[in-house]
Amino acid sequence: MRTDYLISDIPTPAVLLDKQRLAANCQRMSDRAARAGVQLRPHLKTAKSAQVAALATAGQFGGITVSTLAEMRYFFDAGYRDLTYAVGIVPPKMAAIEELMEQGARIRIVLDSVAAVESLAARPTRYRGEVPVLIEIDCGGHRAGVSAQSEELLAIAQCIAATSGLTLDGVLTHAGHSYHANSTAARTEIAEAERDAAVLAAQRLRAAGHACRTVSIGSTPTALTDIPLDGVTEIRPGVYVFFDLSQAALGVCELEDIAASVLATVIGHQHESGHLLIDAGALALSKDVSASEFRSDVGYGLVCDLDGKLIPGLHVADAHQEHGFVKSTEGALAFERFPIGSRLRVLPNHACMTVAPYDAYYVLTGDGPSLQRWDKTSGW
Amino acid sequence: MRTDYLISDIPTPAVLLDKQRLAANCQRMSDRAARAGVQLRPHLKTAKSAQVAALATAGQFGGITVSTLAEMRYFFDAGYRDLTYAVGIVPPKMAAIEELMEQGARIRIVLDSVAAVESLAARPTRYRGEVPVLIEIDCGGHRAGVSAQSEELLAIAQCIAATSGLTLDGVLTHAGHSYHANSTAARTEIAEAERDAAVLAAQRLRAAGHACRTVSIGSTPTALTDIPLDGVTEIRPGVYVFFDLSQAALGVCELEDIAASVLATVIGHQHESGHLLIDAGALALSKDVSASEFRSDVGYGLVCDLDGKLIPGLHVADAHQEHGFVKSTEGALAFERFPIGSRLRVLPNHACMTVAPYDAYYVLTGDGPSLQRWDKTSGW
Repeated sequence: MRTDYLISDIPTPAVLLDKQRLAANCQRMSDRAARAGVQLRPHLKTAKSAQVAALATAGQFGGITVSTLAEMRYFFDAGYRDLTYAVGIVPPKMAAIEELMEQGARIRIVLDSVAAVESLAARPTRYRGEVPVLIEIDCGGHRAGVSAQSEELLAIAQCIAATSGLTLDGVLTHAGHSYHANSTAARTEIAEAERDAAVLAAQRLRAAGHACRTVSIGSTPTALTDIPLDGVTEIRPGVYVFFDLSQAALGVCELEDIAASVLATVIGHQHESGHLLIDAGALALSKDVSASEFRSDVGYGLVCDLDGKLIPGLHVADAHQEHGFVKSTEGALAFERFPIGSRLRVLPNHACMTVAPYDAYYVLTGDGPSLQRWDKTSGW
Repeated sequence: MRTDYLISDIPTPAVLLDKQRLAANCQRMSDRAARAGVQLRPHLKTAKSAQVAALATAGQFGGITVSTLAEMRYFFDAGYRDLTYAVGIVPPKMAAIEELMEQGARIRIVLDSVAAVESLAARPTRYRGEVPVLIEIDCGGHRAGVSAQSEELLAIAQCIAATSGLTLDGVLTHAGHSYHANSTAARTEIAEAERDAAVLAAQRLRAAGHACRTVSIGSTPTALTDIPLDGVTEIRPGVYVFFDLSQAALGVCELEDIAASVLATVIGHQHESGHLLIDAGALALSKDVSASEFRSDVGYGLVCDLDGKLIPGLHVADAHQEHGFVKSTEGALAFERFPIGSRLRVLPNHACMTVAPYDAYYVLTGDGPSLQRWDKTSGW
C-alpha cells in the first residue's frame, strides 16, 4: 500500500484532512477535558479511523466511543480495548460484543428501559463474564433515555442488579439538541442541563445503593462551553475532530478550524444556468444541510481552492447523486478560473454524514506536498 | 460465504430486496423498451449489484450504464463489456477507462463542451484504440449538456472528429427534472422534450456529416410514459428496479411496487415524545427527503411490518446518524405492538441514496423463509 500521494493523483471525490487543524482540534478538546478534570472518551462515529483515533486519544486514558458494531470491531482490531457502544442495545447485537469481550475488550452497553434489561436477561448466551451497563438519561433532547428524576431510572438499576451477567456501571447522556443552539448563552444552558441531568441521575442511583462509577456526558457544542463539570467523569464529543459548517454556523468553531474537505473535480461549465458541475454530488457530500438552519449561503458546502482558501460566494447549491452544482452568491461566476479538470475542495455541512461512506482519508501533513492515506471503516 | 439467511439472523440495519417485485419492475421496463422499439441500457448507479444487473439486462442486449469508476470496474469484473460512463469525463479518469478497454470493454464516455474534448486531446496516454464519445444534450433539466439547437453542439462534434483517438458515437440526455413532475401530463411533456432534444441533436449532427449511432435518453419517470420513441436508440432508466417513495409520490409506481426496504430493529420506546427509536438513522436511510415535495406524511420513510405490509401512519419522522425516530400520524403510537428488539422495514424515500452505502442486499425470493445475500459495490 502506498503511503504518499500527490493531490493531483488522488481520484475524486475524496476526503482530504488537514492534519495540523485536526491536531489542533484534538488539543483543544484535550485541554478542555483537562481543565474540567474529566476524562475524554472521543466518539469515533465521526472519523471512523484508527489514525484519527490515535490523535484524539493522545494523552488520554485510551477509552473511545462507537456507534456501530463495524466501528467496534475495527477499533478493537486497531488495539482499542475500552469501548462504549453508545446506541441503545438489543439482544441480537450482544454476540458480537461478547465475542470481543472474550478477547479482552471492555465494552459498555447502553439502555434506557426495564424492557431492554429484560430482553437482555432473556437472551441465549454462553458468555460468562459481566457486561457493564450505562443507563441512558434524557437531558432534554428527547431522543433516547429516561428522565433523571424518573422512577424508571431506579427500576432499571434494580432490574440490572437482579440480572446475572449485567453490572451497572453508570449513566450516559448526550445533549444532541445543542446542535440547534447558536449562542453561547443557549449552549451554556443546555450544557448545564446535560451535566445536571447526569449528575442528578448518578446521585439518585447512589442514594438507592447502586454503584455509579461512570457519569458520561457530551456533545461537541456543550463540551466546548466553559462550565464546571463537577460530578462528571467523562465527555464523549465526536465532530470536534473535524468540525464542519454546522458547527461553524453555531459559533462553536471558525471556518478556519474545519479539518475535513471533499476534493472534487470540475466536470462541466453551465454558462446559462451559471453553475460549475463537480464530481462530488449527494453521495459524496451527503444531503445533510444542517448549517442552513442558521446560514442561507452554505447549501451543500462552501467551496475552497486547492490550498483550502475559501472562494467568496462559491457554494454547492444543489446535489444529484454524482453531480454537485457550484454557484456563486457574489455576481457572475468566473468560469475561466475553474477550467474543466481543475480541482476544488468543499467544506462539509455535517462532517459525520459527509465522510461516512469513504474508505480512506488523504491527509495533508503540512510537511511537503505528499499526502498520507489513512484507512477508515464504514457501514455497519 | 453463506448464501441463505433467516430474516432474524440479519444484522440491522440492512437492505432487503423483494425479488418478485424487482423482477416485475425489470419486466415492466423491458416491456416498455420492446414496445417502443428501443434498447434498454439500465443505469446501475441505483442497484450497484451484479445480481440486480442480471435481472435488469435479462433479454436485453447487455449494455449497462454506470456513474462511478468503482461501478465500472465492478461490473466489468462481473462480465459486462458494454458500458456507458454517464457523468462528464475528465482526463484523470481516462486511465481507468482505458485499462478496461485494453481488456476488452467498450466504454462510452460523455462530455458537453469543446473544452472537455480539448482537455482529453491533451492528456498523456499510451492507449492506441478509439474511445467512443457521446455528446450530452440538455433537454431542459439544466444540469449538464449543450442545447440541441446550439452552435456548440456542432463545434464539439467537429472537435471530436479532429481529435485522434476519439470517435463520435452519438448523443445522450437525461430528463432529471421529471423527478419534480407529479402528473402524467407533465411527465409526458418532459418525456417528449427529452426525446425531441436527443433526436434533433442527432439529426443536426448527421446533417453536418457526422455519424450518430447512439441516441440515448432516459429517466425512470419519462421512460415509463407511453410516447413513441422514433429516432431514439436506447433508454437508460435506473431507479425503476427498486422504485421508492419519491417515484410513488410522483405516480410513477404504486407503494406495492417498491422492492427495496431497510430492515431495522426497535432499540427504544420514548412514550412522552411518542416515538420508537430504530437503529436505522440518517446513514442507513440517507437524509434525502425528495418525496416530501409531494407528500407530507413520509419523512425519511414509511414503515412496514416484517412482511412488508405498511403500518398506517407510521413513518420515520427524524433521523440522527444511527437513530431513526418512528412516529405515527394516526393517533397514539401503540408501543406494545413494537417491543424492543422487534423488527420493522422502512421504505426508502429515494432508493439510489438509501442503498448506496451498503455492501450487500438480503433478498426475499418468495420461495421459503431463507434469504440470499447479493453483493454490491459502493463508494468511488
